[in-house]
Amino acid sequence: MITVLEGGITEPPGFLAAGVRAGIKRRGLDLAMIVSEAGPVAAAGAFTTNRVKGAPVILTQRHIRNGRLGAIVVNSGIANVFTGRRGMADAKEMARTAAECLGIRPTEVGVASTGLIGAYLPIKKVLAGIKLAVQNLSSSREASLDAVKAMMTTDTFPKEIAVRVDLEDGTPVTIGGIAKGAGMICPKMKTATMLASITTDAAITSGALRLALSAAVDKSFNMITVDNETSTSDMVLVMANGMAGNRIIVEGNMDRKFMAGLDYALTELAWMIASDGEGASKSIEVQAINAKNEKDARIAARTVAGSNLVKAAIFGRDPNWGRIVAALGYSGASFNPEKISIEMRSERGAVELVRRGKTPTKKALLKAKDVMRAKEIEIIVDLAAGSSSAVAWGCDLTYDYVRVNSKYTT
Amino acid sequence: MITVLEGGITEPPGFLAAGVRAGIKRRGLDLAMIVSEAGPVAAAGAFTTNRVKGAPVILTQRHIRNGRLGAIVVNSGIANVFTGRRGMADAKEMARTAAECLGIRPTEVGVASTGLIGAYLPIKKVLAGIKLAVQNLSSSREASLDAVKAMMTTDTFPKEIAVRVDLEDGTPVTIGGIAKGAGMICPKMKTATMLASITTDAAITSGALRLALSAAVDKSFNMITVDNETSTSDMVLVMANGMAGNRIIVEGNMDRKFMAGLDYALTELAWMIASDGEGASKSIEVQAINAKNEKDARIAARTVAGSNLVKAAIFGRDPNWGRIVAALGYSGASFNPEKISIEMRSERGAVELVRRGKTPTKKALLKAKDVMRAKEIEIIVDLAAGSSSAVAWGCDLTYDYVRVNSKYTT
Repeated sequence: MITVLEGGITEPPGFLAAGVRAGIKRRGLDLAMIVSEAGPVAAAGAFTTNRVKGAPVILTQRHIRNGRLGAIVVNSGIANVFTGRRGMADAKEMARTAAECLGIRPTEVGVASTGLIGAYLPIKKVLAGIKLAVQNLSSSREASLDAVKAMMTTDTFPKEIAVRVDLEDGTPVTIGGIAKGAGMICPKMKTATMLASITTDAAITSGALRLALSAAVDKSFNMITVDNETSTSDMVLVMANGMAGNRIIVEGNMDRKFMAGLDYALTELAWMIASDGEGASKSIEVQAINAKNEKDARIAARTVAGSNLVKAAIFGRDPNWGRIVAALGYSGASFNPEKISIEMRSERGAVELVRRGKTPTKKALLKAKDVMRAKEIEIIVDLAAGSSSAVAWGCDLTYDYVRVNSKYTT
Repeated sequence: MITVLEGGITEPPGFLAAGVRAGIKRRGLDLAMIVSEAGPVAAAGAFTTNRVKGAPVILTQRHIRNGRLGAIVVNSGIANVFTGRRGMADAKEMARTAAECLGIRPTEVGVASTGLIGAYLPIKKVLAGIKLAVQNLSSSREASLDAVKAMMTTDTFPKEIAVRVDLEDGTPVTIGGIAKGAGMICPKMKTATMLASITTDAAITSGALRLALSAAVDKSFNMITVDNETSTSDMVLVMANGMAGNRIIVEGNMDRKFMAGLDYALTELAWMIASDGEGASKSIEVQAINAKNEKDARIAARTVAGSNLVKAAIFGRDPNWGRIVAALGYSGASFNPEKISIEMRSERGAVELVRRGKTPTKKALLKAKDVMRAKEIEIIVDLAAGSSSAVAWGCDLTYDYVRVNSKYTT
């Protein structure tokens, strides 16, 4: 059983957070810090696959190889991408300053940045911000909220989650998380960066933590699509301090309850990010069921959720099942068009649009238009080709998406 | 040398065309026919890779295996996709009726349909239309124009091309073509179907024709992206009647001049289709140069041309080079970010946005905004990783794209 708690990154015992204003953005909080009170603990990370990576991504990938972090520093406003040697020196300086303040090693600090590409950080302000953040560290609920606010760029709401699960050995552990989403509403050269930091009091080796994180990211953040663009700065970091006192989770003996809790936390954050997609008026969840294998299920769900034509149809409450069929067709998933079924659901009801290859009646289409009045739309695609399933999340394609992304950067 | 002629599909001697109203669409011409006067000739085709294929696609793929066609029948209004056995029977009936009227075999007729998915053809009207088209066949320039008009769904202008090239043996040959593009402006369940028919008087075996077509399609239609959606009905058919009397072109001894002529004709049609993308206000040409290999060049050019964020930036005249860099980064192409250069060009001038990894000056950004005032924008991406290049075409992402694709189908 998974119990959802209020709060975020400071819910697991032993973690502190802060969000301060360093002066990178024009206004508001712009520097966040998450710290393990007891010093460096087991840690793992997942990073963007974009060939153009920000300096903080390259640096943190290097640091995480030791499987230990004591702190995470995040700034918003400038992504520190495409900034060459100076950018890398700045990222290192951020790690060094945080480490010095906390009495740990620079390689035990994770650094993440989000915002403008191709601009240099105002490094003096950033370093002063780090020192200020260290002074403000707190285990309070507000500290988590401040931290997530300091990570936000164009998000319209802060994204926090905290859950409690009983491990297989019965020990209750807490998992907390904060995330910023893929908004690009600001009239600046943003990429759709997704950042998340996760904390837990579970006792787990860094190897097992990496495995659990990788599996959870595949089911959550990797299944969100706002506009099919992969950022230069995406990063998810997790720290586990072992304070729960459970029998340590190791690679050879993963704890399914812990994995389920992590999946849940990351999936909730992913859903919040998808719902907060730039210009979005509706959230879309696509479930691909009875696929030939997991890969097929994943690409089918993602392709439908990412189709511009499907997204525009959802915006216009157009029950355009033909576009869903066409998207499935080019997804690469195996299926027989004469056997597939497509259902649409929302809080207003459910309607079968395609039933084993049969096209919908006028009545079904009218019902679908009503189902689509809701803010959250589910599309269930039955590929009738096997027994694998996957879920992807996205949002509709609106005038606002075009508006916010066509503004001048200059 | 390639000479561009006026006219289209009826420019090569020995080909007739017609465009008539069968009554499938609410108004206008909706049934086209292209016929080889001398009966079946060498033919080749290229088809959509979408797993969900229209009945006409499946049927014509089967027919083309013999390498011979005497006629092509195209209807617009209904795509005959997701229509099961009845759809296949309808497509066969179209081929049978055309064959009967022309005294050829049904397997020597290519059938293509574009329009609504999941609806049945009004087959009696379609067959009557075929008979009417046969009576109207003509080698006139107007006949080509009528044929292309009858293929159009939401295109805003007819797309025709005719070129003359001297083969390697000195024989002049003509290549003519018509195409319909990827518009989806109609408030109907359209997929972005691309159809093209090509004729030539060159003497060439069907095997050599298939090779030449495949190479030309890879450089042209496969490099257009309006919204990254692959239709259920895309089809390109080419017929070659040998009337030019050249030494027959065979697979083992391809004629480079013929291939260049075919490339040119198809590239022109592809560019017209990209320019006529739904809701488009600007055309975009992306040249990827100095890529590690051809595959890298192709994916780099296509990914930039297909990026929603780049497209929205072009619409808003936002010289957002960061989005181009990010798109290159997730394209999968190999390059060193510190070595790439990005230039933007139009009839208003040229400006280097990124020079060997260096970010642009304010002056360059202002200049770029002016360059972007033009209707046709070129982006040249120098990957500095090798010597391969490729070109892709697209259009901007506009409010109109969202408007036309969010309208009700019901």
